[in-house]
Amino acid sequence: MNGDLRTPPQRSYANEVAWSKREKTVARTAFEAALDRELRDVMRQAKDRADSLQQSSDLWELERYLSESRREIDRKYDYRYSQLIHVLGTLLSQGRLQEAELQGLAEDKLQRIRSLAEWLAKSTA
Amino acid sequence: MNGDLRTPPQRSYANEVAWSKREKTVARTAFEAALDRELRDVMRQAKDRADSLQQSSDLWELERYLSESRREIDRKYDYRYSQLIHVLGTLLSQGRLQEAELQGLAEDKLQRIRSLAEWLAKSTA
Repeated sequence: MNGDLRTPPQRSYANEVAWSKREKTVARTAFEAALDRELRDVMRQAKDRADSLQQSSDLWELERYLSESRREIDRKYDYRYSQLIHVLGTLLSQGRLQEAELQGLAEDKLQRIRSLAEWLAKSTA
Repeated sequence: MNGDLRTPPQRSYANEVAWSKREKTVARTAFEAALDRELRDVMRQAKDRADSLQQSSDLWELERYLSESRREIDRKYDYRYSQLIHVLGTLLSQGRLQEAELQGLAEDKLQRIRSLAEWLAKSTA
């Protein structure tokens, strides 16, 4: 028997969380602020390291630092709603954002983010 | 019949050139001086670019510049006697070394280096 081709089955994701319009704005603002701060930190570090370049090994260390920073930033700042709890939890655990910046998210999301942040902070301590 | 195992056949290379002890010293000194100058140039450039970092794209451009510089330097500074004519010819064509620094090499080597340098300068002009 043929299935109904007009209504394909909805895939359901374990991580699926609904984000209200307001929550999306809060999350996006916090995300962008953390990214901006992290980029500024990398710029400041790059300037400091470049200032004190003495020999070729310092140069290639600066290169390695920048490559690793780029890879880490690419990996970490993944703005997909299915990943956003993980992203915000990670940023919170690293002190890249403050809990106050997440005010406006529903309590269940805040709890999941906080709980992940605590877990990550403990496991990397 | 067995070949004589104690004296394996000598392989002969098209690029094989004999370098006297004195020539090795001249070549090594010129090579190291060019490498040192090139590294200093990259360091100066890196400092300048780091000084004027404004946004993330500048940061990743600095990273790309350093990666490419490292790859180019690794590729170019190949101190094998079988490659040395090519290496010195390339450095001469790029103004990375002056002909005066090669004084002490036999005239046939100088001619090959000069001829390659002119060819490369023409073909990248």
